[in-house]
Amino acid sequence: MNVYRYEENPLVTPRDVKPHRDDFEVIGAFNAGIAQYKDEVIMLLRVAERPISDEPKVVKAPVYNVETGELEIHSLDLDDERYDFSDPRVICEKKNGKSFSYLTSLSYIRLARSKDGRNFTIDDEPFIYPSNELETFGIEDPRVTQIGDTYYIYYSAVSPAGVGESLVSTKDFVEVEHHGMIFCPENKDVLIFPEKINGLYYALHRPVPKSTGAPEIWVAESTNLLHWGNHKHLIGLRDGMWDNGRIGGGAVPIKTEKGWLELYHGASKDDRYCMGAVLLDLENPAKVIARSETPILEPEADYEVDGFFGNVVFSCGVLVEGDVVKMYYGVADTSMACAELSLQEILDSLTY
Amino acid sequence: MNVYRYEENPLVTPRDVKPHRDDFEVIGAFNAGIAQYKDEVIMLLRVAERPISDEPKVVKAPVYNVETGELEIHSLDLDDERYDFSDPRVICEKKNGKSFSYLTSLSYIRLARSKDGRNFTIDDEPFIYPSNELETFGIEDPRVTQIGDTYYIYYSAVSPAGVGESLVSTKDFVEVEHHGMIFCPENKDVLIFPEKINGLYYALHRPVPKSTGAPEIWVAESTNLLHWGNHKHLIGLRDGMWDNGRIGGGAVPIKTEKGWLELYHGASKDDRYCMGAVLLDLENPAKVIARSETPILEPEADYEVDGFFGNVVFSCGVLVEGDVVKMYYGVADTSMACAELSLQEILDSLTY
Repeated sequence: MNVYRYEENPLVTPRDVKPHRDDFEVIGAFNAGIAQYKDEVIMLLRVAERPISDEPKVVKAPVYNVETGELEIHSLDLDDERYDFSDPRVICEKKNGKSFSYLTSLSYIRLARSKDGRNFTIDDEPFIYPSNELETFGIEDPRVTQIGDTYYIYYSAVSPAGVGESLVSTKDFVEVEHHGMIFCPENKDVLIFPEKINGLYYALHRPVPKSTGAPEIWVAESTNLLHWGNHKHLIGLRDGMWDNGRIGGGAVPIKTEKGWLELYHGASKDDRYCMGAVLLDLENPAKVIARSETPILEPEADYEVDGFFGNVVFSCGVLVEGDVVKMYYGVADTSMACAELSLQEILDSLTY
Repeated sequence: MNVYRYEENPLVTPRDVKPHRDDFEVIGAFNAGIAQYKDEVIMLLRVAERPISDEPKVVKAPVYNVETGELEIHSLDLDDERYDFSDPRVICEKKNGKSFSYLTSLSYIRLARSKDGRNFTIDDEPFIYPSNELETFGIEDPRVTQIGDTYYIYYSAVSPAGVGESLVSTKDFVEVEHHGMIFCPENKDVLIFPEKINGLYYALHRPVPKSTGAPEIWVAESTNLLHWGNHKHLIGLRDGMWDNGRIGGGAVPIKTEKGWLELYHGASKDDRYCMGAVLLDLENPAKVIARSETPILEPEADYEVDGFFGNVVFSCGVLVEGDVVKMYYGVADTSMACAELSLQEILDSLTY
């Protein structure tokens, strides 16, 4: 696979983003949804910030308080034996296993804009910020589907009640209308198809079941984008392959002559995140036509290998111009990069 | 709370049910959905059957094969150290923790009918049987909501892909129309309200998130009963109380002057299942008005305490006649019983 990584990579880093509070620091500007709006490429950055801590033995966990509209800062002692701090992203109570009690940062969505798709100007203020009890731990990994003149933005809403997927919409990237949670916990990596298929909207989603089953990709249908049903299991993990740990949708499905092309992420059991592709039937997106045996993009550049959570390439949005797929992607849970691939080459690389 | 348990209890036991195959034995006839159809009370029994095993060291796990339409029997050796057999209901691979790989029985839905609500005649054949790839481990715990002349029946669909909730409908308890999975994994204990509220259908549901959150009751809305959204967290576990382990909806919500009364099950951390109640706003079922501090029904009778999985009372359906709530309920994951309670007494017992 020929991959042309931009010379400007990483395009956006945490250092480029002004913290939204003086006592916070930006540790991530990554996993951005992508939209074309008028003559600009819009990045809907996931910005992760954490409280600045002068005490090396203390971890501070920010939590949004719905009643005050302010953040509460919970301080946890690294020596507190009740907690497991081994994953830099989360704080777990040991009695609860790998189920987390706090996040170490708060994520929200910030806009960045570019005329050339390479040089981005970042807004000074948050665009979408936690605003209800299902978002008190933050909002993450936005995707954007344009239908007509409306941009549907959906993201992981994280709270002690679980991780689900919520929907908002905008026509101008200024005014935002909230539509509530469209996929209940535990779910993330939702991708809404950009047009109706035989009279119904479709979406990919990624439930994480507990009692049995794995983090795999499902498909659902809707009449109105707000209510979803007829859930079907679409593709699963593959033993011994690059996507044997967890998988989830990445970019909004691309309509091609051969089918709907979904660029998805797959992680191995040791948390190395790559991008691959799956091709779905044009008339019935619950039917799989072909899939990548090997990744189309792997973490290889230094900015992909090293970072807050390294060895991660994770796309939440692409732009397609003719045969060129401009794949924007988060790197190492830290920054944003972009690479160009050939649409035809991706299609040819699949196993039918 | 005054509870009048029927003298005939248990009303239906596994011994009353003819196995659907000669080489199987019925181990459970429990957690039945309840409907009034013409002059009969209909029980939609969850019947659990397992392959008869002559080898004490072998556990046989039945799995429905979608392609052949037959059951496959997987034999597992009790001495196989890869597996954990400590929960009689499931078989777990130790490397996967408490996530199960097989069930020890296959459940499906069988009808039982009664003119007096106490003496039931049980059909000889299954009514609803696993029929697709999301039901290969069986279907469990049906509930029934009557809307007009249609009975909507929904149940847990269990497969290696996870446990979700699927919907069928019937007008005559003979012909059944399938509507697919309405709540994706992991979810169960769905209860659809019996009428629209301000133009929308509502349902309670019970997601089981993995990364964070607990098995708690949520509410969702729909325009068509098939597609669901605007998910909201409704009520949670309560530390130190009878419902501190897991909770889930039980019976179809009962419309009263004070609000929608939901009779729900709560289990303690040591898996003692009781029934309690929560009262929801008539105009907005996402708003909680009152809740039980103590259970309205606890496992006390011998048939509730002892059985395949003891110390369980678990109602999936009630009939209300004036002030009398006829609560049908599964006991010890084994049999069916019924108790009468006063609707007014339940409402008066709640903490507002």
